[in-house]
Amino acid sequence: MLIPFIFISACGADNANESEWRTLDLNNTVLLTLPQGKVVIELAPQFSPKHVEQFSSLVQKSFYDGTKFYRVIDGFVAQGGPKDGSEQDKSVPLLAMEGQFSTDGKAPFTLVQRDDLFAKKTGFKEGFAVATNNSKSGWLTHCPGVLAMARSNEADSASSHFYFVIGQAPRYLDKIMTIFGRVVYGMNHIQAIQRTTVIDGEYAVDSREHTPIISMKLMADVPKKDRIIIEVENTESASFAERLVKRRARASEFFYKKPPPVLDVCQVPIRSRLVKLQD
Amino acid sequence: MLIPFIFISACGADNANESEWRTLDLNNTVLLTLPQGKVVIELAPQFSPKHVEQFSSLVQKSFYDGTKFYRVIDGFVAQGGPKDGSEQDKSVPLLAMEGQFSTDGKAPFTLVQRDDLFAKKTGFKEGFAVATNNSKSGWLTHCPGVLAMARSNEADSASSHFYFVIGQAPRYLDKIMTIFGRVVYGMNHIQAIQRTTVIDGEYAVDSREHTPIISMKLMADVPKKDRIIIEVENTESASFAERLVKRRARASEFFYKKPPPVLDVCQVPIRSRLVKLQD
Repeated sequence: MLIPFIFISACGADNANESEWRTLDLNNTVLLTLPQGKVVIELAPQFSPKHVEQFSSLVQKSFYDGTKFYRVIDGFVAQGGPKDGSEQDKSVPLLAMEGQFSTDGKAPFTLVQRDDLFAKKTGFKEGFAVATNNSKSGWLTHCPGVLAMARSNEADSASSHFYFVIGQAPRYLDKIMTIFGRVVYGMNHIQAIQRTTVIDGEYAVDSREHTPIISMKLMADVPKKDRIIIEVENTESASFAERLVKRRARASEFFYKKPPPVLDVCQVPIRSRLVKLQD
Repeated sequence: MLIPFIFISACGADNANESEWRTLDLNNTVLLTLPQGKVVIELAPQFSPKHVEQFSSLVQKSFYDGTKFYRVIDGFVAQGGPKDGSEQDKSVPLLAMEGQFSTDGKAPFTLVQRDDLFAKKTGFKEGFAVATNNSKSGWLTHCPGVLAMARSNEADSASSHFYFVIGQAPRYLDKIMTIFGRVVYGMNHIQAIQRTTVIDGEYAVDSREHTPIISMKLMADVPKKDRIIIEVENTESASFAERLVKRRARASEFFYKKPPPVLDVCQVPIRSRLVKLQD
């Protein structure tokens, strides 16, 4: 009776892994409206609960509406938040660093690569690029599109200022900054945010030109007709694992010489698809 | 008489390395005008002479003026060129791959890092990110902002279609594509090029929305008053080497825990400065 056993085992243990796509929890999804378009962000309460709690609470209070991206460095980050030192700024409590998460010794993620420059293992967990050096803990890694909280020099000094990574992964920030979300739709609009730093010799960008946030809302709070419903690739699925194998092998004829069979975890795009878009 | 000897040696051998900044050769610099702004590209004839020769010749014939970025994938590449299969397209001779360069056994570059995922050594040579596995040859590596020639499946099939890298370095393309330039000014405008591929479920981007090239000219052919004169960091200079040491050490108090003392060659920004800008 081997065959039924396997069948039952697959259905029982790996049921969640059968599906290629995963729906987002609308209470942990943010709709960011910029002048150039709409952006959808998936929050990561399973990794950074306190940061997500505070950020979500601020979003629900319309805290960020009208604030600007005041520090935007091409190839690095787009940072936003309230006016430095303002009453609004000072009103927000400080957060303790959540730069790492515990894995309780369980296989923590879908493995992508061993021994890159910054970690013994990299991979994906629930759509997020992760890294680890042991079986007990891991961290979200600074790939393009992640959302993290800015801070002062002290570890536990983040409050409301946040940044999106818009360039080559600054992984030296891993574990000492708290990543708590990632862009799943509209990254092109994040890339179009007005840069605020300029090269030596060029005029400064007037703060009136800085890109404003028109609004930021939890998707659950958006009227149904205005929601943008996204599904993302299920990084725990068999089809995703298969895609990693193919990506590593580069079997296409285009690769007339095969590249090294390695993958940069930040260079593996996680697909999204739009279920419904209403403007 | 040790001291004078050292003094003379330093002045003799390293004279060119004294300067922190390097001027560009206007015959190997391209001014790309997009609707959103101006971009300056440094060409690399020292690495990819035939590609630069053909590209420069096409630029001088206004070949690209009015063509569009027809394949733009967020986080990957912005690709442009003439209409596929058109007379204009077919008029251009094919180029032999120039994916690697010889170093004649000489120390080839300013070392950044040993043993990253893709190469035994990475570093910079004349402003370009390079990599190598031995003392005889090296290659330009696919960092954000590089300009390379597209091709069909065959190695020697590039002609006029080109791409800029706009996301996490796709280094699996190294050595099997010819990189022949890099953006030294206006990368923000390259990032603002209209994406042409969309996620599943979204409407297709009409080709009329694709970003056009208003003009592309060799800077030497631009009237003096309209030139954008850029200087770039001299990656052979002592001050650059010192900056690499500092970047690796992360001495700032902001790094309350120090990251691993490693550098991703594509995550080391090479500075540019504007000597003169006239609109």
